[in-house]
Amino acid sequence: MSLRHDDVISKLSLEQKAALTSGADFWSSTEVPGIRRITMNDGPHGLRVVDDIGIHGAKPATCFPPAVGLGSTWNPALQREVGQAIGREARALGVDVVLGPGINIKRSPLCGRNFEYVSEDPLVAGAFGQALVEGIQSEGVGASVKHFAANNQETDRMHVSVQVDERTLREIYLPAFERVVKNAAPATVMCSYNRINGVYSAQNEWLLGDVLRTDWGFDGVVVSDWGAVVDRVASVQAGLDLKMPTSSGDEAVLAAAQSGELPEAVLDQVADRIATLAERADASARGPVEIDVDAHHELALRAALEGPVLLKNENGALPLPERSSMRIAVVGEFARTPRFQGAGSSQVNPTRVDTPLDALTGIIGDRLSFAPGFTFDGDAAADAELAAEARTLAQASDWTVLFLGLPESYESEGFDRTSIELPQNQLALLESVSTVTRRIVVVLSNGSVVETESWASRARAILEGWLLGQAGGEAIARLLFGRANPSGRLTESIPLKLESTPSYINFPGGEGEVVYGERIYVGYRYYDTRGVAVSFPFGHGLSYTEFEYSGLSVEPREVGASVTFTVTNVGDVAGAEVAQLYRSDRHSAADRPAHELVAFRKVFLEPGQSETVTVELDERAFAYWSILRHGWVVDAGLFTIEVGSSSRDLRLAGEVQLGALGPALKLTVFSSIGEWLADPVGGQVLQGALAQLPDAHTFQLDPATNEGRMFAAIPLGHLLTMVPGAPAGVAEQLVGAYERALATQR
Amino acid sequence: MSLRHDDVISKLSLEQKAALTSGADFWSSTEVPGIRRITMNDGPHGLRVVDDIGIHGAKPATCFPPAVGLGSTWNPALQREVGQAIGREARALGVDVVLGPGINIKRSPLCGRNFEYVSEDPLVAGAFGQALVEGIQSEGVGASVKHFAANNQETDRMHVSVQVDERTLREIYLPAFERVVKNAAPATVMCSYNRINGVYSAQNEWLLGDVLRTDWGFDGVVVSDWGAVVDRVASVQAGLDLKMPTSSGDEAVLAAAQSGELPEAVLDQVADRIATLAERADASARGPVEIDVDAHHELALRAALEGPVLLKNENGALPLPERSSMRIAVVGEFARTPRFQGAGSSQVNPTRVDTPLDALTGIIGDRLSFAPGFTFDGDAAADAELAAEARTLAQASDWTVLFLGLPESYESEGFDRTSIELPQNQLALLESVSTVTRRIVVVLSNGSVVETESWASRARAILEGWLLGQAGGEAIARLLFGRANPSGRLTESIPLKLESTPSYINFPGGEGEVVYGERIYVGYRYYDTRGVAVSFPFGHGLSYTEFEYSGLSVEPREVGASVTFTVTNVGDVAGAEVAQLYRSDRHSAADRPAHELVAFRKVFLEPGQSETVTVELDERAFAYWSILRHGWVVDAGLFTIEVGSSSRDLRLAGEVQLGALGPALKLTVFSSIGEWLADPVGGQVLQGALAQLPDAHTFQLDPATNEGRMFAAIPLGHLLTMVPGAPAGVAEQLVGAYERALATQR
Repeated sequence: MSLRHDDVISKLSLEQKAALTSGADFWSSTEVPGIRRITMNDGPHGLRVVDDIGIHGAKPATCFPPAVGLGSTWNPALQREVGQAIGREARALGVDVVLGPGINIKRSPLCGRNFEYVSEDPLVAGAFGQALVEGIQSEGVGASVKHFAANNQETDRMHVSVQVDERTLREIYLPAFERVVKNAAPATVMCSYNRINGVYSAQNEWLLGDVLRTDWGFDGVVVSDWGAVVDRVASVQAGLDLKMPTSSGDEAVLAAAQSGELPEAVLDQVADRIATLAERADASARGPVEIDVDAHHELALRAALEGPVLLKNENGALPLPERSSMRIAVVGEFARTPRFQGAGSSQVNPTRVDTPLDALTGIIGDRLSFAPGFTFDGDAAADAELAAEARTLAQASDWTVLFLGLPESYESEGFDRTSIELPQNQLALLESVSTVTRRIVVVLSNGSVVETESWASRARAILEGWLLGQAGGEAIARLLFGRANPSGRLTESIPLKLESTPSYINFPGGEGEVVYGERIYVGYRYYDTRGVAVSFPFGHGLSYTEFEYSGLSVEPREVGASVTFTVTNVGDVAGAEVAQLYRSDRHSAADRPAHELVAFRKVFLEPGQSETVTVELDERAFAYWSILRHGWVVDAGLFTIEVGSSSRDLRLAGEVQLGALGPALKLTVFSSIGEWLADPVGGQVLQGALAQLPDAHTFQLDPATNEGRMFAAIPLGHLLTMVPGAPAGVAEQLVGAYERALATQR
Repeated sequence: MSLRHDDVISKLSLEQKAALTSGADFWSSTEVPGIRRITMNDGPHGLRVVDDIGIHGAKPATCFPPAVGLGSTWNPALQREVGQAIGREARALGVDVVLGPGINIKRSPLCGRNFEYVSEDPLVAGAFGQALVEGIQSEGVGASVKHFAANNQETDRMHVSVQVDERTLREIYLPAFERVVKNAAPATVMCSYNRINGVYSAQNEWLLGDVLRTDWGFDGVVVSDWGAVVDRVASVQAGLDLKMPTSSGDEAVLAAAQSGELPEAVLDQVADRIATLAERADASARGPVEIDVDAHHELALRAALEGPVLLKNENGALPLPERSSMRIAVVGEFARTPRFQGAGSSQVNPTRVDTPLDALTGIIGDRLSFAPGFTFDGDAAADAELAAEARTLAQASDWTVLFLGLPESYESEGFDRTSIELPQNQLALLESVSTVTRRIVVVLSNGSVVETESWASRARAILEGWLLGQAGGEAIARLLFGRANPSGRLTESIPLKLESTPSYINFPGGEGEVVYGERIYVGYRYYDTRGVAVSFPFGHGLSYTEFEYSGLSVEPREVGASVTFTVTNVGDVAGAEVAQLYRSDRHSAADRPAHELVAFRKVFLEPGQSETVTVELDERAFAYWSILRHGWVVDAGLFTIEVGSSSRDLRLAGEVQLGALGPALKLTVFSSIGEWLADPVGGQVLQGALAQLPDAHTFQLDPATNEGRMFAAIPLGHLLTMVPGAPAGVAEQLVGAYERALATQR
């Protein structure tokens, strides 16, 4: 393999090459002659530049909405803008590589790091990841898409082995990464802590080699998650370029190189990739940059405005009337002390923070009264007093806006939740307030899904505000009063209860193993296939206006289909609809979910305005991963395309007939007699051979009889072991004859 | 290893030893000097002795209820009697080894062979298997417990790889076999067709060696299922003694022995086991035997009387009044042409068959009228006419007894169902008849579960008759008229719908793999843990009388607990209750089902009679299988014992505090910092070492903070890779110091 930086690398000693495979300290790579030090910092939704390993005390940076909020916008263009702003701040702060975005699949609502992830659906996660990487890298710095792969829980995250089949990886846990790698060429990919089927990601040759580099063509640097490397030599061998942090263990790499166990060419390759990274991801290359803090805050606000999801809006309770004499009670500590980001390595030190309380006061002034309602730490005595105060306020007001959510101690990087319920003191407050007023609006602040079924009936409207970054307070205020129209959509289903979540019996595993037993049936793929009730389905989100769908056409293309339809804003105010396309497949040989999201479009429409949307669906929108054929396969037949507003609010459906795509299935000794006889070539080969067997039994092969079906299901090889006198190897000979016959046919 | 038959084996040539590893023909082993031919025939619920491989044309034998019916009796003593009768018929028919019982777990109601299996619960399946083997072998012939292991579907059964974790195998799919092997010493175990985690059972060293022979001490013969051997040499090497049928491939065994690839000692061991089998399982050893056909039919009737499960009995609709002027319409082809056994290798040629129609006529004479109601093959025109006739009859009668069920073409060895619904023509008939009468009793004939939710409301009573063997017709008649009291109980849950079954998204797999994604959560373990509604729960079954439970005491024993309670018949007629004991565990480190059956007792009581039952629960009733510790583990704490009439009709509950049992957990490099610090010995070792590190960081370890929790979860080995300057191998050194400290403490 030729090296791009042969001139530099040829001058390096083996020691220097070994040193390049690990960080110099907590936040940067090792400098060697000709290859500069590269700095990396946390930053999926804003930068966290610190001097040491502590979480706090970072340099100020704009805190954009974390993935849970930004992802809910379903707006890649907006996400790209945010990415570019982060890239700009990276330049200003001297960060060469931004450690983000995180695009792992939300397998369970319990995962403590869900706020950093985007969706239960790989298409949504991939689209977000691509946009963020494109944005960040447009400023000449690098991104690090993470955590590759199957890092879907915090419990035992550094050691747990994810037991999962390849199809599930290829269809659910890898496609978001695949999309980012193929479409956005991230400078780096960060490997995950966990093991997959027993092998650490940091030393997984299949994952880092076969999949990432060979199948997807990734030519950037693979960096380890901080502390993810267990076996230094195995990691380098498997394709991990840079172990972070610090340099412990370099001597093992050096020794392996000296002994020849680790070919020097492998180290040269690492050095070449890091040298290339130093060029591609350079905070200083484009010269100094000034950050317009206010402009970035404004962007954070625009992003925050599109994230919240209006779950429920009984009788048009929202928007609240802005100009009237109505009195509004604002209740809940979150209104005053907002939770706007998650805890752990992604924690940004924001340039400023808008609180909902200030923003609401800014709109309606002294018509607003506030009561904290509860404590974050659940102090029973204080809570009782606060609830009484809140009730009094609510009674004296026309509407009560209740800010509920998960306090910071409920969710964080590093551990998982064990319940999806809101804190008891908050639920008690809601119940208490609901005894004095029916006019309640609930605004939620939470990084991952909370149960709503038990209390939703007490609220006229529910605005799921997730975590919205430093401008979230202003965004919430504008949405509540109709100065903006909610356009966020659920990127994850809200289940009735924890027990009904797909991974309930398999999360978080134990004794170092977690079985992904639900396989490809994650999120709505599970609920919709099994007919399990949810509180709010994937893709759901209300608006202050309404949209109509019409005029669907689905036309086959050479590989895939072209889908056209029209969305119309039939309401009175401007708004945005997220049109979702699902593909359903009832005919393929493989088991498939009831339907799967294959495309989406966010459409902004003035009242009365229509937009005709055309979406080209490629082969992958129809294909499944075949383990046997080791590739993406489309089984010929009739597919259905559904178009609508959520996975359970489908407005249009059309069908399209497609031909087969992907590697063909070949007969083997394990193919059944029925399969052999049904195959034109195989049937001929087999019939001919059967007639010549020394003691040929005559088998009944009437598929209408139980015996006929039983017989037809026997694999050829197995059958022949039961035929007296059948010579050894005869099944393999038949396969050979079949393959020769196939070859002559071509 | 010393051989029992060294004298015989030492005289055998290598060719003769190789020949012993396979059958001489379809039904017998190979004869060599000193070791006679051993004949084997199908027969889990009666003998099928045929001359060739055909299914039909067997010699007459008593057809006892298949496992689905006999298992539902929950009566091991009765099952033992049936086993003994089968053993006696084996002697009469010259069968040395009876190929049964089948005790695979009913993982899905779709499995085509469920009628041959007992339960979704391993305790129930094991108790049945033990009783049947004990009974068969009490006559001096051998049994063959099958199919070992994890053969839970017919689809691709000869090749499919069951992807399953060891805990699930140890707790769900193996314990029934373990119980039979340990308690009943079956002469042979029959290996299954399928693969487990990629390895065919016929050549699975772990399964046949480590588990079966080493852990359980099995010293009998392992015989292959017919056609299950793919690699002859690997099979012999793995511990498979006898490949059935026929001798193809012996030359490979011989060649491997000649080349030394296969040690001759392995062949000697096989020969020794087969020679032992020839002694243990000998149809002629006890001399000639006459079968009392009538007595065996009478036993078949007794068995059939205890199998049917009274699912529903609104307002005491059953029993029907025997002496009155009421007219009874008997509707349904099953009344005239009963389905009393399943299809495939277990199909017995019965000595006689009682039809329900004849038996009912015998009781009420001409007060009965009959209409077939539908055709088995769903002829639409004929069905319409038959339904009209049935409706007329029903209208003219006081009660209508509707015999519905699955025609033979719906379920068989060799293929799986894809739906659990009754045939459409039968459901249409029921609906049609229900328009003219509300007094409907449904009697079901089916080998595996059918959906009842959609139609149950149309029937006042439902008697689930399963398949009941040749005397089933008489049994049903007696039960309907109260000449006998139903005492069968469900050995499998009846789900609301197919979509809610635990394996729905993972059955039957595809492309040669099936993932046991529900793990240990099979049957009621799934429904009760996830709170999923069912139509009728595991263990359910009504009676014509009622039972009260009282006086529970649960006392700890050195290893386990002693449970005592009293059951009283508080009704007016004699009857039998199946008291079920479930253990619940909310404290163990491993995830556990809501509760698990740990014992049951069938109690026969006259009206007003009480019986006090005492059950000793051993360690296994409380233990789970620990992968890490490789053994059965009881975590110290409070366990709950529930006693009742079904998994969802629990009448009593008591608690018992138990101490820890099983291998202890030891700290490793993968144990977290939190685990190290919490361990008295490990904590001391670690604290001492941390203080001495060259550049010791001070980490915040307040478990009340998110950072503290995050840090505490880091494995020791991983942590040390992040400490600058920490020498390689330091984590291993700490583990060494910990182990030395442990050793000195003892």
